[in-house]
Amino acid sequence: MTGDPLPSWLPTPAKQAIVEFVAEVTDPDSAEFVPEPERIAVFDNDGTLWTEQPMYAQLAFALDRAAELGHPTSLEELHAGGMPALTELLTLTHAGVTTDEFGAACRRWAASASHPRFGRPYPAMVYQPMLELLDLLDGHGFSCWIFSGGGTDFMRAFAAEIYGLPPYRVIGSVGATEFRDGAAGPELVKSATIQVINDGPQKPASIHTHIGQRPILAAGNTDGDLAMLQWTAASPHRTLQLVVQHTDAEREYAYDHDPILGAGTSALYAAATEYQWTLVDMAADWAVVYPPDR
Amino acid sequence: MTGDPLPSWLPTPAKQAIVEFVAEVTDPDSAEFVPEPERIAVFDNDGTLWTEQPMYAQLAFALDRAAELGHPTSLEELHAGGMPALTELLTLTHAGVTTDEFGAACRRWAASASHPRFGRPYPAMVYQPMLELLDLLDGHGFSCWIFSGGGTDFMRAFAAEIYGLPPYRVIGSVGATEFRDGAAGPELVKSATIQVINDGPQKPASIHTHIGQRPILAAGNTDGDLAMLQWTAASPHRTLQLVVQHTDAEREYAYDHDPILGAGTSALYAAATEYQWTLVDMAADWAVVYPPDR
Repeated sequence: MTGDPLPSWLPTPAKQAIVEFVAEVTDPDSAEFVPEPERIAVFDNDGTLWTEQPMYAQLAFALDRAAELGHPTSLEELHAGGMPALTELLTLTHAGVTTDEFGAACRRWAASASHPRFGRPYPAMVYQPMLELLDLLDGHGFSCWIFSGGGTDFMRAFAAEIYGLPPYRVIGSVGATEFRDGAAGPELVKSATIQVINDGPQKPASIHTHIGQRPILAAGNTDGDLAMLQWTAASPHRTLQLVVQHTDAEREYAYDHDPILGAGTSALYAAATEYQWTLVDMAADWAVVYPPDR
Repeated sequence: MTGDPLPSWLPTPAKQAIVEFVAEVTDPDSAEFVPEPERIAVFDNDGTLWTEQPMYAQLAFALDRAAELGHPTSLEELHAGGMPALTELLTLTHAGVTTDEFGAACRRWAASASHPRFGRPYPAMVYQPMLELLDLLDGHGFSCWIFSGGGTDFMRAFAAEIYGLPPYRVIGSVGATEFRDGAAGPELVKSATIQVINDGPQKPASIHTHIGQRPILAAGNTDGDLAMLQWTAASPHRTLQLVVQHTDAEREYAYDHDPILGAGTSALYAAATEYQWTLVDMAADWAVVYPPDR
């Protein structure tokens, strides 16, 4: 490898921790060497790999799709309506279609919608430093996976393009599907019944189900990622935990809890302090936030 | 590649169908060429890759483990006790332990138990022709996955060794786990609550969740595999469906329904006839059944 593999990371302790970790676990002469098949890295998605403000991209998709389907609603109505309103929105926008149709709708949306503040397409709201990290790891024999609270089908519709990951490495919450013999042959029809909410302690459980190995690197940004980072830290190998902190009101957002669902960061930050996990301070550690050319 | 990649297959139409399919979809000059990332093959496990008679290996494991734990029971008692007895056995032998402890118990069992009729260790009850098929596919850019009704944790304990597959490609039924901070750090404790029974129409749903792509090759042996084969057949690519038929009472078993759970084959065989799927007649198509050197 020539040149700096992480050009969008400023020369701070966070970058140093990443570079040193990757060098050690991939050096066959190191006591901390980890064989390639065990180099598993897991990432939260919203707020860790791309922007989750002012609302999760999937919620923006749902609101746009509801309007497109002739049933417009708003964040305010959702708040007022509570869980029944959210379920109604989910049923309207995520259910009653085949997985193929849903994927197509997601891709259409991703190609046309743009972020309300930055005016970029949503796929261009990914963090350039994290793309570089994914590339660095991939180039060093790691397999990178996403474990997100977002819907698996929604994320996969554009994850391959954005992150260069095969669909099987993008895992989120899962809704029930019904297998049926449709007009065009066998198909899976999405329902509004949620089978797995991939957050909190479910993340290690999903990692166990989908990978069956303990990761050695984990990155997250809220308390919903804490269990995933703890699970990773308990690997017998040397591990690295990254905690992305939203500190940049100018270039992205500055916040320590999610404004919609209320997910906080206090437990995660406390654990980060206790176990000396690596904090990634967006304002201080990143030279750029978004890919310049998208 | 030199020599015959499938030496344990007799020169019959089944072998010819496999060889011809692999050649076509991997030939860049063929109209039926399939790019490597889309060369997905899915296999049932019990009765398709290894012997499921006189009872599923996992049931043999459960009975052995129950005895080891001081609560011996028998098939007869299970039959008489119905579902409550089966749940009790599952709770006793599969729950209340961490995933690490359970994996270790499975590996100990696999290393010590032997098949009641053939006297071989269970890992040596795999079908040599299917091992050769997995190797052939792997050597031609396919990724092979297992989708079984058996437990994911049970299968993974020795799947890597037997089939040469990473754990993430071995998917079965899934029990709930509880994430907790144990004495030795974070751990997942298995419970007897079954979250996913990976059979029938659930197989395509699991394939969608775990792979997110449609396979182009599927192999199974009972009606529980029908939906998986249908799902595969609906791929836009050329596909191959293999139906393993147990016709060899001497070298293996001859049966068309499972004696324990009663899974039949009539719907699968009817579909195989209707869609001209490839029948694999164990007696007529396989030169040997089990690996000779184990």
